[in-house]
Amino acid sequence: LKLVFEVKEKDLLGRVGRVYIKGKRLDTPAFIPVISPYNQIIPPSEMKKRFRCNMVITNSYIIYRRFGEAGVEKGVHRIINFDGIVMTDSGGFQVLEYGDIDINPVEIAVYQERIGSDVAVPLDKPTGLTSRQEAEETVRVTLDNIAKTFNSLGDERRSCWTAPIQGGLYHDLLERCIKELLKYDFDLFSLGSPTPLMERYQYGKLVDMMFNARLHVPLDKPLHLFGAGHPMLFPFAVALGYDTFDSASYVLFAKADRYMLSSRTVKLENLAYLPCECSVCSLTTAEELRKLEKNERVKLLAMHNLSICFREVELIKQHIHEGRFFELLESRARAHPALMQAFSNIIRNDKIMQLMANHTPLTKPRGMYLFSAESLRRPEIRRGAERLEKVMSSSPTCFGMRRTAILIPHKLVITLKLEKLLQRLRKLENYGEAAVFTYYTPFGIVPLSLSRTYPFSQLSYPKSLIRDNLNQISRETLKKLRNLGFETVILIKSGGEPPSWFLEGLGEVLAKEFNVRAVEL
Amino acid sequence: LKLVFEVKEKDLLGRVGRVYIKGKRLDTPAFIPVISPYNQIIPPSEMKKRFRCNMVITNSYIIYRRFGEAGVEKGVHRIINFDGIVMTDSGGFQVLEYGDIDINPVEIAVYQERIGSDVAVPLDKPTGLTSRQEAEETVRVTLDNIAKTFNSLGDERRSCWTAPIQGGLYHDLLERCIKELLKYDFDLFSLGSPTPLMERYQYGKLVDMMFNARLHVPLDKPLHLFGAGHPMLFPFAVALGYDTFDSASYVLFAKADRYMLSSRTVKLENLAYLPCECSVCSLTTAEELRKLEKNERVKLLAMHNLSICFREVELIKQHIHEGRFFELLESRARAHPALMQAFSNIIRNDKIMQLMANHTPLTKPRGMYLFSAESLRRPEIRRGAERLEKVMSSSPTCFGMRRTAILIPHKLVITLKLEKLLQRLRKLENYGEAAVFTYYTPFGIVPLSLSRTYPFSQLSYPKSLIRDNLNQISRETLKKLRNLGFETVILIKSGGEPPSWFLEGLGEVLAKEFNVRAVEL
Repeated sequence: LKLVFEVKEKDLLGRVGRVYIKGKRLDTPAFIPVISPYNQIIPPSEMKKRFRCNMVITNSYIIYRRFGEAGVEKGVHRIINFDGIVMTDSGGFQVLEYGDIDINPVEIAVYQERIGSDVAVPLDKPTGLTSRQEAEETVRVTLDNIAKTFNSLGDERRSCWTAPIQGGLYHDLLERCIKELLKYDFDLFSLGSPTPLMERYQYGKLVDMMFNARLHVPLDKPLHLFGAGHPMLFPFAVALGYDTFDSASYVLFAKADRYMLSSRTVKLENLAYLPCECSVCSLTTAEELRKLEKNERVKLLAMHNLSICFREVELIKQHIHEGRFFELLESRARAHPALMQAFSNIIRNDKIMQLMANHTPLTKPRGMYLFSAESLRRPEIRRGAERLEKVMSSSPTCFGMRRTAILIPHKLVITLKLEKLLQRLRKLENYGEAAVFTYYTPFGIVPLSLSRTYPFSQLSYPKSLIRDNLNQISRETLKKLRNLGFETVILIKSGGEPPSWFLEGLGEVLAKEFNVRAVEL
Repeated sequence: LKLVFEVKEKDLLGRVGRVYIKGKRLDTPAFIPVISPYNQIIPPSEMKKRFRCNMVITNSYIIYRRFGEAGVEKGVHRIINFDGIVMTDSGGFQVLEYGDIDINPVEIAVYQERIGSDVAVPLDKPTGLTSRQEAEETVRVTLDNIAKTFNSLGDERRSCWTAPIQGGLYHDLLERCIKELLKYDFDLFSLGSPTPLMERYQYGKLVDMMFNARLHVPLDKPLHLFGAGHPMLFPFAVALGYDTFDSASYVLFAKADRYMLSSRTVKLENLAYLPCECSVCSLTTAEELRKLEKNERVKLLAMHNLSICFREVELIKQHIHEGRFFELLESRARAHPALMQAFSNIIRNDKIMQLMANHTPLTKPRGMYLFSAESLRRPEIRRGAERLEKVMSSSPTCFGMRRTAILIPHKLVITLKLEKLLQRLRKLENYGEAAVFTYYTPFGIVPLSLSRTYPFSQLSYPKSLIRDNLNQISRETLKKLRNLGFETVILIKSGGEPPSWFLEGLGEVLAKEFNVRAVEL
């Protein structure tokens, strides 16, 4: 087997795993630096030493133009002096930037195999942002190139081959492209054409395109994102199921005197401090950086930018490991309004959230942090709410025959022994004919039987979450109680919980349909 | 002058500045590591070399107990081998932890001066979390100690002295304490007793206490926070006007095998990756760290934790420099639900937000990023809304005599030339008697005359901000239009803006009181 993909841990659609390519191991998710075949600002061997980087991507078309047959003799690994995994792009990007290039798909494919590329890309025609008609043409050409390429290479391929997904924002085209690609024996898949969307900050559309591709590529295949740009996009790419992503931004930004942070970029002229402890930043100041001669400055900025890219990936992996990946997205969405829009598109897309719910572990070792209404859309909560719905609608014997609902503050269930709690409740006059729920939760009400189960008992949230969503929580509670046919609702107060603003707000809503009483326990 | 404080840049209540203490310079805001007088896990000289740390805090009571008169001879700087600024605590913490200590306030004050402390603290009695009566007693004892101390030291003080603020959560007590402290000639102020609140994650109450102290300490005095714990609190401390904060957490956490991140702490056993590029993390792995012998492990963890603390301060300074400090808070609030609660307390406290609005620059060189309803509470927006209110209520000649309001999509004003826009508008039949506003903004409507001014024209926000707050924005628009006495409202559509969900939502609300027409321009 040329490629083996093992998934170790999952959260949302992200996975931590390992890809073995021709015997060499890559820990995923992975950031794959784009390097020039010659004239490297930072040699890949140094990337390997400093960042344990074990995969880079370079351009076979440039190697072909510059080295020709000599490139074949030397091999791509010696050309760039790197013994890790080398992916070679075919020149598709050049097509996008400069129009057609003077090589045919079979030639560049054969050349990639001959220089010993570990992961090769058929010559594709990137869709970019074009008309429907042109987009159809790019998919047609890409698929046509692939047919010719695989026809010529036969079954004795030496490289792993990745399928270039085109079609861009035309969802049906992109889907059709993937279906066609699946007819071939590709080792992995790569989504093309994100760059123009990124450059225009259209992250919302980017998310839609990325999800559309993920939906149709089998989950057991590694999925790559071409040209992932800024590290602030990495968490979202991984959350949508992308395992690897290449980018040349670290050096392009450096050349433009731009300093990366995990959530944005600062122009060197606006940089007064270096909020970083990398090998560059711990030894210099912003002032000193600015004064450096251009070449040296670019090298140092590129090294710093690389640090930020690699660090972000480790942070993502650690969050997946802890089951706190959603929390990272909530924080990182605040990097840029366009990213917030992308995040909003994700959490409001039922199809995405359902797939994420299927993919996220059923229970997690640690409690969950909720912050605002966004948090209530996370998969664990979604599943919890569905379970709640199911239990409450399918248990008429438990609830439906009773006329009184007793609501006790959720915290009481967590802090008080159940027996002690029930002892106190039994003294209430309606207890005999009552069903017991917990309330003052972001879910509205939870039956006592579920309130100590995951995720209901493992939640940590600020009061502001309830306060800001009081109307919705009250209406949700009303709906649930109405569906179960209660007549009387007893709101239990105990030890200052719930606070009066909550009791009043909820009470007002419930009083429209129920006989409501508040009782201090 | 023993102490000079220069403020260079401001945002919210935070300031970037410099404190000169006995001729030595400290860039603020500053994290001040707590170090042991002997047995330092990381020597302060190394902190200076690695992190440009120029101020540490150590305990004069421990020096007194261990070195006595020999300590005076050697001096605190030689004892800890550090030529930067040394602050000495008096032993107040020992009082809190172990009850009374066997030294009187005058003795320890004189001792601090004699060992050459740069910043000394009178022996205070920390309030902690106690009853009202006990809290009063701590303030009384603290003030009594100070009276004795200053009486004995006279005017020839060699050290800078900081005023220890006690009173804790009893706001009137704390305020009274500060008023008494202001009668003395203190060089700076320090808020005591935050630790018990931090340990209980009561960040909401912590914020209230911190703000209360800030409100009563003159803004030209540096304000210090004792025992600031975790770096995730640093942005909030600075945003509330604290210039320095000490913490021993870097080493305490290290001893407990806890690895700091800027937004949380991970137990070493749960750490699979090292999302950091500091001198420690770039040379090792989580697995290797775990296998180290205890002493070595603590040293490396402490060094990493220190990196994180210093880095967070640089990040805060850079955000203040760029005028994006509020954005950092929005992101960091997602570190922990208790921090979210603290953030919520800040932005919902009118007094805090008003003071922040007074203190934040009137205009900023860069546009603002808005993300969600929280963003709408930031000082620039608050001021903008106030200006809007003023203009719209005090300009009856501009608005009040007209019967028609024309609302044009805000984006049109930004992207279209004004003349071109007016040309198109003049063709509308009601134009002669109309007042023109922009709409589809988070503010509701903005008069055309203000729409190209700061901050209205410098906003960047996701559509989701408007969608999530559609009801409120619609009601706000209704209110403004009603107050100006219009009869007809013309909603201009142009180039897909505003989207139909917005037009429908707003239209429905406005139709209750106005004659509403939608016109495609």
